[in-house]
This record gives sequence, structure tokens and C-alpha cells, in this order.
Amino acid sequence: MPVTAPAEEQLFALQTSGMLDRLARLPGFEDAQEEMVTAILDGANALANDRFAALHAIGDTEGARWSTEGVTLPKGFAAAYQAYVEGGWGSLSAAPEAGGQGLPAVLGVAVQEQLASANMAFQLCMMLTLGGIEALSVHGSDDQKALYLPRIVSGEWTATMNLTEPQAGSDVGAVRTSATPADGDAWHIKGSKIFITWGEHDLAANIVHLVLARTPDAPAGTKGLSLFLVPKFLPDTDGTPGARNGVDCAAIEHKLGIHASPTCTMIFGEAQPAIGWLVGPRHGGIAAMFTMMNHARLNVGLEGVAIAERAYRDALAFARERVQSAGFDASREPQPILAHADVRRMLMTMRARAEGCRALVYHAVAALDIAHADPDPAARADAKTLADLLTPIAKAFATDSGVEAASLGIQIGGGMGYIEETGLARHLRDARIAPIYEGTNGIQALDLVGRKLRMDGGVGWRAFIEEMAAGAIADGELTAGAKTLARAVATLRETAGKLYAMAPAEAAGGATPFLRMFGLTVTAHLLLQQAKVAATRIGGGDDTPFLRAKIATARFACEQLLPEMFGLVPAATGGTALLYPEGDPLFAG
Amino acid sequence: MPVTAPAEEQLFALQTSGMLDRLARLPGFEDAQEEMVTAILDGANALANDRFAALHAIGDTEGARWSTEGVTLPKGFAAAYQAYVEGGWGSLSAAPEAGGQGLPAVLGVAVQEQLASANMAFQLCMMLTLGGIEALSVHGSDDQKALYLPRIVSGEWTATMNLTEPQAGSDVGAVRTSATPADGDAWHIKGSKIFITWGEHDLAANIVHLVLARTPDAPAGTKGLSLFLVPKFLPDTDGTPGARNGVDCAAIEHKLGIHASPTCTMIFGEAQPAIGWLVGPRHGGIAAMFTMMNHARLNVGLEGVAIAERAYRDALAFARERVQSAGFDASREPQPILAHADVRRMLMTMRARAEGCRALVYHAVAALDIAHADPDPAARADAKTLADLLTPIAKAFATDSGVEAASLGIQIGGGMGYIEETGLARHLRDARIAPIYEGTNGIQALDLVGRKLRMDGGVGWRAFIEEMAAGAIADGELTAGAKTLARAVATLRETAGKLYAMAPAEAAGGATPFLRMFGLTVTAHLLLQQAKVAATRIGGGDDTPFLRAKIATARFACEQLLPEMFGLVPAATGGTALLYPEGDPLFAG
Repeated sequence: MPVTAPAEEQLFALQTSGMLDRLARLPGFEDAQEEMVTAILDGANALANDRFAALHAIGDTEGARWSTEGVTLPKGFAAAYQAYVEGGWGSLSAAPEAGGQGLPAVLGVAVQEQLASANMAFQLCMMLTLGGIEALSVHGSDDQKALYLPRIVSGEWTATMNLTEPQAGSDVGAVRTSATPADGDAWHIKGSKIFITWGEHDLAANIVHLVLARTPDAPAGTKGLSLFLVPKFLPDTDGTPGARNGVDCAAIEHKLGIHASPTCTMIFGEAQPAIGWLVGPRHGGIAAMFTMMNHARLNVGLEGVAIAERAYRDALAFARERVQSAGFDASREPQPILAHADVRRMLMTMRARAEGCRALVYHAVAALDIAHADPDPAARADAKTLADLLTPIAKAFATDSGVEAASLGIQIGGGMGYIEETGLARHLRDARIAPIYEGTNGIQALDLVGRKLRMDGGVGWRAFIEEMAAGAIADGELTAGAKTLARAVATLRETAGKLYAMAPAEAAGGATPFLRMFGLTVTAHLLLQQAKVAATRIGGGDDTPFLRAKIATARFACEQLLPEMFGLVPAATGGTALLYPEGDPLFAG
Repeated sequence: MPVTAPAEEQLFALQTSGMLDRLARLPGFEDAQEEMVTAILDGANALANDRFAALHAIGDTEGARWSTEGVTLPKGFAAAYQAYVEGGWGSLSAAPEAGGQGLPAVLGVAVQEQLASANMAFQLCMMLTLGGIEALSVHGSDDQKALYLPRIVSGEWTATMNLTEPQAGSDVGAVRTSATPADGDAWHIKGSKIFITWGEHDLAANIVHLVLARTPDAPAGTKGLSLFLVPKFLPDTDGTPGARNGVDCAAIEHKLGIHASPTCTMIFGEAQPAIGWLVGPRHGGIAAMFTMMNHARLNVGLEGVAIAERAYRDALAFARERVQSAGFDASREPQPILAHADVRRMLMTMRARAEGCRALVYHAVAALDIAHADPDPAARADAKTLADLLTPIAKAFATDSGVEAASLGIQIGGGMGYIEETGLARHLRDARIAPIYEGTNGIQALDLVGRKLRMDGGVGWRAFIEEMAAGAIADGELTAGAKTLARAVATLRETAGKLYAMAPAEAAGGATPFLRMFGLTVTAHLLLQQAKVAATRIGGGDDTPFLRAKIATARFACEQLLPEMFGLVPAATGGTALLYPEGDPLFAG
């Protein structure tokens, strides 16, 4: 039984929330037609289920291993990675001039989702590499692009992001790693980085580290950061990896989950100099980071989607097999637990979260595609505004949903869910990182309330809320859901208005509940729009279980899950007074 | 820094929600005066923090180990267990005739909470033993009581509950283990049991297994179950453990958490006969189970309290130390993350859950004490009804809260929370079992809606709701919270009425959201009553940070957490229609 979303679901989500038809009309994206998209999704589905999923258990139990020689992955990873490279899966959305296929990013995202559902820890290697491609594409010099990009795009080499240091986590401006001028345009990088995902491994011929460091003349804080390219092996001008550079993995972390993803402590310039080259202008490091941030955050949101889908599929398979207790039917015979209403509530919740968050992530990524490719500057600007608004919501709400779904999956498994052999518990261990990295979900909420609500004088979110309001109309069996959605949109409008009018320091107190209100509303909205398309197709005679399920999911999301948002209003609008109580020992700490 | 609730908090919770003054006026409980209670809490606090907490990390990383010789615990467990036995900690609430101290159960619960906060996996050994004491006290013969009870009460021997079999989890009526008559009043037990907590270990001289099995003449289902006592070593009449009985641990599980708690597969009568004796009447097994169930479920709810408190304390300590990012103050200097509003929201949520669920569990256990000890039959009956009503809510809401708090603790830790060395992730792994065992939380919700709402024609819940309504009045800074509580109680009354009027099969669809509505309301209610006591004391001149914090917690719980319940009404009252959508592939499964 496949453990990832069916291609049918991904195609439908791409065609509706992912705005595929609109994308296919943009210059450069003409190839993104249904037939080709289906072939890509089917291929990715096979790679994910046949190759990546098979390595999930061993990746978790054996994990990445460190020695003084480097980091090794369990047997099978290198061959599966090779299959990924040979299939050209990493190059789908890269620019043709770098050897890419130039397809919309949202298609690449659908492919990556398959791999993450099958093996989240493994897919992180691809995710980081895609981030490196983006950074070099936008900020790299022509020489850097010529030498590095094609090899990273093909997957022959992988890439990493080296930001975090012990004292500099969420506070990236506290970075201390130094860069001093060396021969020619080279620099010597010195310092250590922690939590570097796939910082060292044995799957690729070279690893290209992108490192935030501080030049001698740098001002304090984020403004003084520069981005450097530090390859593991120094390539010749023809791209052959040569001498080993002075960058080493000193240790890997022992983590709750994603054991196959080596989380490395990287040491630069300890035994020998670590040679690097500036990417983009000096002191332009933070700008380069911001360039990548939108895609990176959406890619982490995608992990939430992937793990929610995986947890749903595994729990559904379990619930179909596990016979236990009589239901309310006349037979009084023990039944598969899928028959029990409370188990179904959990499964429907998981499905609604997975499909709702998929819709949200695809919608935001498609907006980035439009912002990149639409010839009309106004359309590009509108799409950029939408993507900016949705990014923190997609990152935080989808990753929270991944954790929620994984936890429900364990609950459905009962005692069997709690023992490791069934694999249900692994999803929770894996999922739990996603609300933390690439900006904690608390930081996403502050970004939403402090920055995104305030950009362009609030024009962006007001426009999107009016779009949701206009969509909150439906007939037939979707009537009740649409009515709840209309109420929710009105409540969201009012709540956003209150936060917009508050001082930022006050609004911060309600940022997380507000983000959740937004997440519940926008996912219900997107699922309702999908369901209306499904209803139209059914009305046209195309009555399939898949389309029926789309309506059922949207109804459940709108009628039963969405109302949670009404209960969050007091917390979202309450400011900070109750969080800083006078005379309280918590405050005294 | 202590990792468990301060004695001050436990005493206050006992005196308010735990009805300690009322208990101390009941015959037999006269010793439960403030001075003695404080001494007990201080002693338990020391045992927990000095001995049990120190074994938390090694218990997790090394864990219980199985060999053909049996199960061994890491170094230090045996000595700490001996300290528990020598301190008489297990005998607090047991009957004096069995060597116990005859104190209210709620006091024993406060002590066990300390141990569970310090080391949940270890405390499970005590929890199971306390369950065995209860079963034998109520259902054992005089001979069984004389031979076994004093040794189990002292802790010299431990006890287990052997219910689950591979095909019989939630569906206990599917048990197949057989009992056939042997010499005299002895029986031969044959079969295997899984998931037996602390079924085998090296801490005590003997282990007394209580085993559900089926006699040859037994009817099908739960009505045919009998309870048997099967000691690991067959004792002489003077209680000296003699020959090894035919019960063996064949394996232990590899679980997500609670690694120091051996979860055993027990084999009865394989190599040699397993000799057992009937406890209570033949076919009385399910009745014996129900006797124990109230305390057992509340004891599991207590684990939720314990882990929420522990996660709160560890996260608070982390948030005080970890310096990261500037806040909104004028300095713009990096601050401990405790200064950030969103971190405080997480900490306040954890604290409100821990203290609210503590109040709930203590309240329900104290009601059981009254139901047991009050000379007035009407008072006993009312208290029993209250305990019956609150038990599923306490079990499910408190264990869900334990998971929620542990997850928030990881979030506060950020990247450090996700690596195992900080210990924050361990709490989530440990906490995740509690919503599953002793009746899954879904089963608790069905118990609430299907049984507890319907008992006595609904008199019980209506009376409790009116009590909450009467308490939803306060002045000063508690006014707003009390108003929200009054609205919530009215909503709960209306929702309960709708479910009461529904067919049970329909009501089952909303059972879980309804239980959560009830849990949010009753914990806010109990915290508000605590805060009113605190306000009175502050008004009387006793202005301490602890009492200030009580008011802050109650305000946060009532004004910001409680409103979640309003958003759950549609799911609670929606019946099952949206859970069984026609034509949906989920349904088709």
C-alpha cells in the first residue's frame, strides 16, 4: 500500500489551489500541461514508494553515523540518492541555463512532498540542496554559477546552509564566525556552526557549504553578515573536486527523530584554513538569507503536509486491519476500528489537515511562481504580496498540523502505536522538528503580525480576506460549510483589524493564536474551493470516490474544524497583559 | 532546581480542590492535618528530587534490559526503590489492617505525583502496585489478604495487572487466557499477555500478578472473565517466597518512551504450570476490574499532571537561561527568552494545564475518598456520582494536557529541545503513552457521553454544572474570567443536554470534543475557585508571589484558554453524519 499522497490528489491540488492552469499560460512554464505533470507525479510516487520508503525504518534505527573519517548513511541510501540524481528529480524547477527543466516551483514541491512522505530525514538533503541552488542562482557571480550550479542542480554535489552557532539560533545577528581576506578573492573562514543539516555525508562527490560569517570591518548584528561559499573539496576550474578544504564535521547530534539526517557541528579553519568565496556583496548575507527564506519556509511547511499525509495513510491502514470491540451496529461483533466514530474523527482530522495544508503550501508556492514569471508587473506584485502573507502561516500551521496528525496516528494505533516497531511513533519524532527550524513557529507568528499584517499599509491581507469572503458561498451540501466560513472570514477580518491597530509589542502577545485562526480559515477556504470544483465535476457526470471525498473533507474542515478559530479570538486580541502578571514568580525569574 | 511541584502548590491544591479540610473531619482521616500533610509533601519532594530524578536520564538511555534470566533495571533503581519502601511511601493510603497508614487517597496521589514528575517510568511500578493493593483489598479472601497484602503494601513485593492480549486490547472481553481447576483451590493458568507494565524486574523479592482469564465454563465476552492471583514465587504460609511459578517474561517492548518501565510479554504455564488462585467470585473478573478502574484512571490522569508540571519546570529553567534576540524594550539587547511574549504564552499555557489538571485529579480523588469514608450515605452517593463523572474527564484531559505541555516544552527549547541531551524531548516520549493506556482517551470520551451523562437520569452532571454556575462569580481582577466561565458553563449545559437527548450511537460522534469542552470548563472552574481563595488571603494581608501567581493562572485559564470550548460546540453536537460520508474511499475501506 502506497505511503504517500496519490498522484490524483496532488494533481487536483495543483490544478485548484496550485493554480496550475494559470501557471501553464506564463512564459517559460508552457510545458506544465496535465499529461506531463501526471507523468512527473507518477514517477515521483514510484521513486518515493519503491526506493525512499524502504529506507525509512533503517534510517531511523541505524541512523547516520559519525567517525573521524566523516558521516556515513545506512546501506541503500547512496543507491537511492543516485536514483534521484539520475532521474533528474532535483532539477525540475531549476533554470534551464543551470541545467534545470525550468518548470514551476510548485511542481518541484509536489515531487519533494512525495519524498518527504516516504522518508522525511532523507528528503532534507534535497531540501537543503534546493535552498543552495536558489541562493547561488540569485546571488552568485557568473563564475560561481558556471562552476557550481550545474553540479548542484544535477545533484552530483549537495549544498548546506551554515547559519546557527551556539549563541546564535533565532538571533542570527549574533553570529561570530569570521572571514578574513586571503589570496586573490578568497577568504579564510574561521569558527564553528551547529545544527547543520546534512553538513557531512557519503552520498555525493562534494558538499557546497553556504556560510554566514562576519568580515573584519563588519558592523554588529545582521547588517554585518556576509555569505560565503565553502566547498568540502576545492574544485579545479573544470569542476573536478580536488584538495580537501579546512571544513570538518566534529560531531552529529543525538536527536528525537530524523535520525537519518546528520545534524552536524561544522568546524571551519581549525586544522587547516577553510577557503571560501563571497556570495553576493560584502555585508549582503542577510539579504541573501531573506531571498531564500520564502521558499525555505514553504519547504518546511511542506514537511508538515508530507508527514500528516504519511501518518494518515499509515493510521488508516492500521484502522482497516485492527479488529477490536463491537460498534453500534446490530451484530455486536468486533469490527475493524475504522468502524468506530471516534477513530473516524481522528482520521478525518488528519486528512483535512493534510489536504488543507497541501492546498495552502501549493497556493503560496504558486504565488511565488507567478511573482517570478508573470510578465505583468502588477500581477507579479500582487502575487508576491500574497506569498509573503501566506508564508508564515503555511510554515507554522502546516508543521503544527504535521505534529498533530502524527500524534493522532499514534493514538489510533493504541498500544501498538506506542511501540516503535509499527512505525507510527516515528512520525511524531520526525515531525516534531518542523515547528522549530527555519524560524520557530513563534517567530512565524511574529512575522505575520509584526511584518506581514503591516506591509503596504495592510492592503495585502485585506485583499486576501475579501477574496476569501467572496469565495464563502456554496450551495447543496456545501451550504453549511460556506456559511461557517463566511462567519470565520468576518471574524478574521475584525481580529486582524484589531491587531493592525495595536502597538506591535502588544500585538505580539496574540500572535500565535492569531496565526492559528488564519491557518484554520485559509485551509478551510481552499478546501471549500476544491470541493466546489469537485461538485461541478460530479454534476457533470464525473462521480468518483475521490471527488466525493473532496466534498466530505471540505465539509468536515469547514463545519467541525474551522470553528476552533472562534474560540481563539480572546487570546489573539488580548495583548500581553495576562502574560506579564505583576508579582508573579514567573515574572520575577 | 527542583523538577517537581513545590509542596506549597500541592498543599494549596489539596486544601482547595482536594477538599482536605472536609476529609480531615471524616472518621479515620483525622491525621490529615496541615502540619502532617506538609511533612509528607516535603518528604516526598525530597525523595523525588534527590533520588528519583537522578535516575531519569539513565532510565531513558539505558532502560530496562531483558535476558533469559529476567529483566534488570539500570544501576541505582534498586536502591531508590528500597528508599521508597523504607520510607513507607507506598503505604500512605492503604488500610491500617494491611499495614497502611489509612490516610486519604488524595494524599497518596500527591506523593505519587512527585515521583511521576521526577521519573514517570519508575513511578509506574508503584502505580501498578497500588492498583494491586486495591484489587486485593476489595476482592481478596481473608487468607489472600493476610498472606499478600502486607507485603505489597510495604512494597516488599510489587503487583501487576495482566489484562491485554494481542487480540484483546480495548476489547477486554476477547481475552483467551485459560484457567483450569488444579489441586485444592488452585488453578492452572495458561496463555500469554502483552503490554504488562513492570511485569518482571529485579527490584523486589516477589511479583504478584493479577491475571484476567477464562474458566472452562465461562460465557463469552467480559461476563466470562475471572481474576486470578499468580505469584512469581510461590510463598510459604509464612510468606517466604519459595519455588518459581510457571510465569515468565518472554520479551519486553521497544517503546517511544518510558524506557525504564519494562513492558512485558508474560507467558503463563508454558514450561511448567502457572499456579493461581481466584480473586473474588468466579466470573467476577470484570467487576474487580471496574472496582479498580476509577483509581487507576485517575492515577493515569495524574501522570498527565506530573509530566505537564515537569515539562513546565524544565522549560522555565531553560527560558531563564537561554539568551536570544532583543525584546521590545528600549535597550534592544538580547534577553533571556523568558522575556518574549510568545514564550510566556507557552509557559503560562503549560502552567495553567498543570495546575488545572492537578485540581481536577485531586478533586476527583477526594470525591472517591468521601465516597469511601463519609458516614452519611447521601454524601457518599453524591461524591461517588461526582467521581464517576469526573474520572473520564480527568484521565483524558489531563493526559492530553501532559502531551501538549511536553510538546510546548520542546518548542521553548528550540533546536536544543529537539536534541535528546537536554531532556525536554524525553517528556514528550514519556507523556505520549498516557492518552493510550488504562482505556484510550477515545474510550474515556465514550464513557463520559455514553455512560456518565446518562447515569441517574442525568442528575449527576446537572448538579455539577449548577455548582460550577454558582461558582462563576468573582469581583476585582477576576471579574472578566468569571464572566467567561459563566458563559462556558451555560454552553456546556446546553451541549450536554443535546448529547443527552441524542441516541448513544449518534452522540458518540462528538464524544471527544465534548470531553475537551468539559475538561476546559472544569479546570477553569477549579482554578477560579483557587484564585478566589488566593484573593481572600491576599486581602487578609498574606500577599505572596505564590498567591499572586494563582490569580494570574486562573485569569489566563479563564480568559484565554477556556474560550477554546466555544469553538468545539459544532463538533461535539454534530453527531456522526460527517464521519461516515457516503461514497468516500475512507468509508469504502
